[in-house]
Amino acid sequence: MINFQTSPDQYKHWKLRIDGPVAQLSMDVQEDQTLAEGYKLKLNSYDLGVDIELADVIQRLRFEHPEVRAVVLTSLKPRIFCAGANIYMLGTSSHAFKVNFCKFTNETRCAIEDDSRHSGRRYIAALNGTASGGGYELAIACDEIYLVDDGNSAVSLPEVPLLGVLPGTGGLTRLVDKRKIRRDRADVFSTLAEGLKGKRAKEWGLIDDSFPTSKFQEEVEARVKKVVRDEVQAGNSRQGIKLNPLQFESTNDSRAYKYVTVKLHREKRYADLTMRGPEADSPSTPDEIEKLGDSYWPLRAYRELDDMLLHLRVNEPEIGLICLRTEGVIDNVIAVDQTLAANRDHWLIREIVLHMARVLRRLDLTAKSFFAVIEPGSCFAGNLLELALSADRTYMLNDPEAAQTSVSVSELNAGALPMSNGLTRLQSRFLAEPEKVAEVLAHEGLFDTEAADAAGLITFSPDDLDWENEIRVAIEERTSLSPDALTGMEASLRFAGPESMDTKIFGRLTAWQNWIFQRPNAVGPQGALTNYGKPTQAQFDYKRT
Amino acid sequence: MINFQTSPDQYKHWKLRIDGPVAQLSMDVQEDQTLAEGYKLKLNSYDLGVDIELADVIQRLRFEHPEVRAVVLTSLKPRIFCAGANIYMLGTSSHAFKVNFCKFTNETRCAIEDDSRHSGRRYIAALNGTASGGGYELAIACDEIYLVDDGNSAVSLPEVPLLGVLPGTGGLTRLVDKRKIRRDRADVFSTLAEGLKGKRAKEWGLIDDSFPTSKFQEEVEARVKKVVRDEVQAGNSRQGIKLNPLQFESTNDSRAYKYVTVKLHREKRYADLTMRGPEADSPSTPDEIEKLGDSYWPLRAYRELDDMLLHLRVNEPEIGLICLRTEGVIDNVIAVDQTLAANRDHWLIREIVLHMARVLRRLDLTAKSFFAVIEPGSCFAGNLLELALSADRTYMLNDPEAAQTSVSVSELNAGALPMSNGLTRLQSRFLAEPEKVAEVLAHEGLFDTEAADAAGLITFSPDDLDWENEIRVAIEERTSLSPDALTGMEASLRFAGPESMDTKIFGRLTAWQNWIFQRPNAVGPQGALTNYGKPTQAQFDYKRT
Repeated sequence: MINFQTSPDQYKHWKLRIDGPVAQLSMDVQEDQTLAEGYKLKLNSYDLGVDIELADVIQRLRFEHPEVRAVVLTSLKPRIFCAGANIYMLGTSSHAFKVNFCKFTNETRCAIEDDSRHSGRRYIAALNGTASGGGYELAIACDEIYLVDDGNSAVSLPEVPLLGVLPGTGGLTRLVDKRKIRRDRADVFSTLAEGLKGKRAKEWGLIDDSFPTSKFQEEVEARVKKVVRDEVQAGNSRQGIKLNPLQFESTNDSRAYKYVTVKLHREKRYADLTMRGPEADSPSTPDEIEKLGDSYWPLRAYRELDDMLLHLRVNEPEIGLICLRTEGVIDNVIAVDQTLAANRDHWLIREIVLHMARVLRRLDLTAKSFFAVIEPGSCFAGNLLELALSADRTYMLNDPEAAQTSVSVSELNAGALPMSNGLTRLQSRFLAEPEKVAEVLAHEGLFDTEAADAAGLITFSPDDLDWENEIRVAIEERTSLSPDALTGMEASLRFAGPESMDTKIFGRLTAWQNWIFQRPNAVGPQGALTNYGKPTQAQFDYKRT
Repeated sequence: MINFQTSPDQYKHWKLRIDGPVAQLSMDVQEDQTLAEGYKLKLNSYDLGVDIELADVIQRLRFEHPEVRAVVLTSLKPRIFCAGANIYMLGTSSHAFKVNFCKFTNETRCAIEDDSRHSGRRYIAALNGTASGGGYELAIACDEIYLVDDGNSAVSLPEVPLLGVLPGTGGLTRLVDKRKIRRDRADVFSTLAEGLKGKRAKEWGLIDDSFPTSKFQEEVEARVKKVVRDEVQAGNSRQGIKLNPLQFESTNDSRAYKYVTVKLHREKRYADLTMRGPEADSPSTPDEIEKLGDSYWPLRAYRELDDMLLHLRVNEPEIGLICLRTEGVIDNVIAVDQTLAANRDHWLIREIVLHMARVLRRLDLTAKSFFAVIEPGSCFAGNLLELALSADRTYMLNDPEAAQTSVSVSELNAGALPMSNGLTRLQSRFLAEPEKVAEVLAHEGLFDTEAADAAGLITFSPDDLDWENEIRVAIEERTSLSPDALTGMEASLRFAGPESMDTKIFGRLTAWQNWIFQRPNAVGPQGALTNYGKPTQAQFDYKRT
């Protein structure tokens, strides 16, 4: 059972030092503190455990240390910044684990960019030694990259030449799409095991600058000072809130946080995930919310949802379908959304909304099917309506006799919670009829089942005679299908319309990497990944496909 | 050895009837006329041989029958339009063949859309029976889809529920990106083996209309008449030119057309592909060009290049690297480009330029590495400069003592030959410095090696002492790498910047399909593709990745 929760006092691999507006985040991976048996994390190489800490620290900086305006990523090991994902870990992992590992590390790097883009925190990679593979991929997720010029340290993506796999943690995409490296140079760089050092790396745009060892620290500090001065002049002094551990109770077939509960139906390979809406007394001012801290519903509930999604992805691979349900009072959800929408320029509210958006994107990117089930007592409204809109299908009971069965929109459906492709889920839904987006957003009051159907918000609306049977059959059918075909299908259908760097990473690059991760040339007995570090040489079937 | 050349008198599976501005293209697949052993093409299912004919007829319509303004695709079989790619053929094919088969069929469907978009020919799918899987994917490549309402005929994508693979010939992408079907409906449709019939299919946007059997022909004809009337009023009456068979000579390690030659170095797994430029006496008016017909250099040379690329893809899988070379006189290439650019509103010139663009896109999408090699006597100018710009790397000899070693731009580099993502190859190259595109295009005269290097047009410029050694080492290194990793890497680096429906099909959808095409759940002994049509049921490993 992999646990995605951690906190600074538990970190094994990272040291965080905060000095006013500057955070120094230093990688110091402990070789023996691995998540599984059979490998050692030499040379600041990482496994999922190292990345769980990194994801945690980035999240905490946003909530606990809003005063931090610049994050310097560096290493405490001599001559090495980071050697990337541990090869022996990859070589001994199942295909499914490799895929989930890469997805999580990709989301973590996207979270760095999300912080930079939306919260203005500047990430500076201070490469005081070689950054290879995933190490360089971590660097190019940062805003600026400085490399020590010590005659030895280089940046490199040696995956293709050494391992027969891709730099799949966004590396190839960020080379040409973020840093806009000329594609022929990207080609040379990505096939050059030893990588490039200071001068040429800078000339090609792989780093922003390089400095001799004697001046490295001083130059990086000067750069950081400049960033921080600009930021502090913009007038940012805030106090953070504490992110406390999420408590949950679990049995063999359930897990229950305060607001998010999952019940597993293992033999049927699906789960019911229920998210409970806020209570009636949610605070309505930023001051009250700051005081309430991490127990404020939108933060707590979405943190719980996030942890649950990660748990289901990695620890429950046989669960192929998740039925999304909600319980609560629609008015309470709408009231929360109104507070959030009215205070989006307050730092904490902004962070809360950005966090909700990231969690919903994690859901979009989860390789499981989602059905939303809308029944009496549910509260698919505003931010929780996004759950229904992110589902592959929606079932809504059509029973005028029953108690309230309704959905509702709020301001938060209008742009605050974008998908990875930059569209809202309503825009994505109504690509063929873009005028419907405004119509739905302008709708006054609740949508009952017929109105929701007419508005195009739901897929099916069985009446109470058919309801249970139709849901049961839909679940049985879905969970009988090939899980691989569903993963590919959902990855294709969920992201219509425009593409962004993120969707290219998760759609194109990841799909190619997953393909390669299965090929005998990588993982067969003679494959390059299998043979890494052994005296034997990889043997390739040279047929091009 | 698969031969990609054919002509109407050789067609086995398609009947083409031309009646003034209307072409009726009827599918009538001959069960026993298969490209390989071990399967029968029942129910208008297809193999590569069927699709080679389809690609040929679409190409010929453009050049030989420019008077045709509407193409009606229909079937001569009762109650079935097309059952899609033959499952037994897929089940017995190698992974590499499946991938290449899908790539070619995808290119053929993109060619239909290219014809519609740029040449205004309207494609009407008259589904006089069920269109399932690749049959429906062929239909959604058309502009309009009409389905007979006979109580039985349906459109369907049964790949996921029946075969455990994707509708990978653009189907999923075109559902949500072209026809903009709501994603929850696309999800339902793509998991519904039996598909949808007339009324609901229309309501969901899967077809444009449906008509009862008794009125089907009449209604389709009425629609065709309307299309044609609009088009003929626009004043289009032209006479086509004939596309004659391409002659070539071949040995075990070479193939030589008139302008395009390949020499294979099998033991070293690379090939030299040389394209010879035009003679000095190219015609300069559309009238002369029409008279010259298919022996006009830009048409002939690019048809030869196209056939060569297809040959190398499918028949020479172990050749992993192609060194692109040119021979000829730069001024002659530029003169041809000037003629083409000056007459792009003439139908034949337009078709010739669009064809060149398609062939270059075929090169971009070829899963082999390309190095351009620029030496004295080469003519990488204008349209042939696109070869160098589409290469993964470019080597240009730096020897001021040697005879002319130069490259040059022409008007055709400015937008006439776009990549699949809509960018020119110069735009794609200079994403980081977009102003360089105009600078390069404005350059007067030739670029010598130093100027080409300074302009960013080449990757490496070894001098004559290093030249042979550097090229040799680069070839050896490239061909030693994992062919799978190179395929994934090139697919990621070649298409920076925006995405189009085409790049989503070839990048995202194809990559997922290739992944699934390797998964035991599809192709293992218990896999769905393997078990199709057998009394045994597929057995899945239900772990989600």
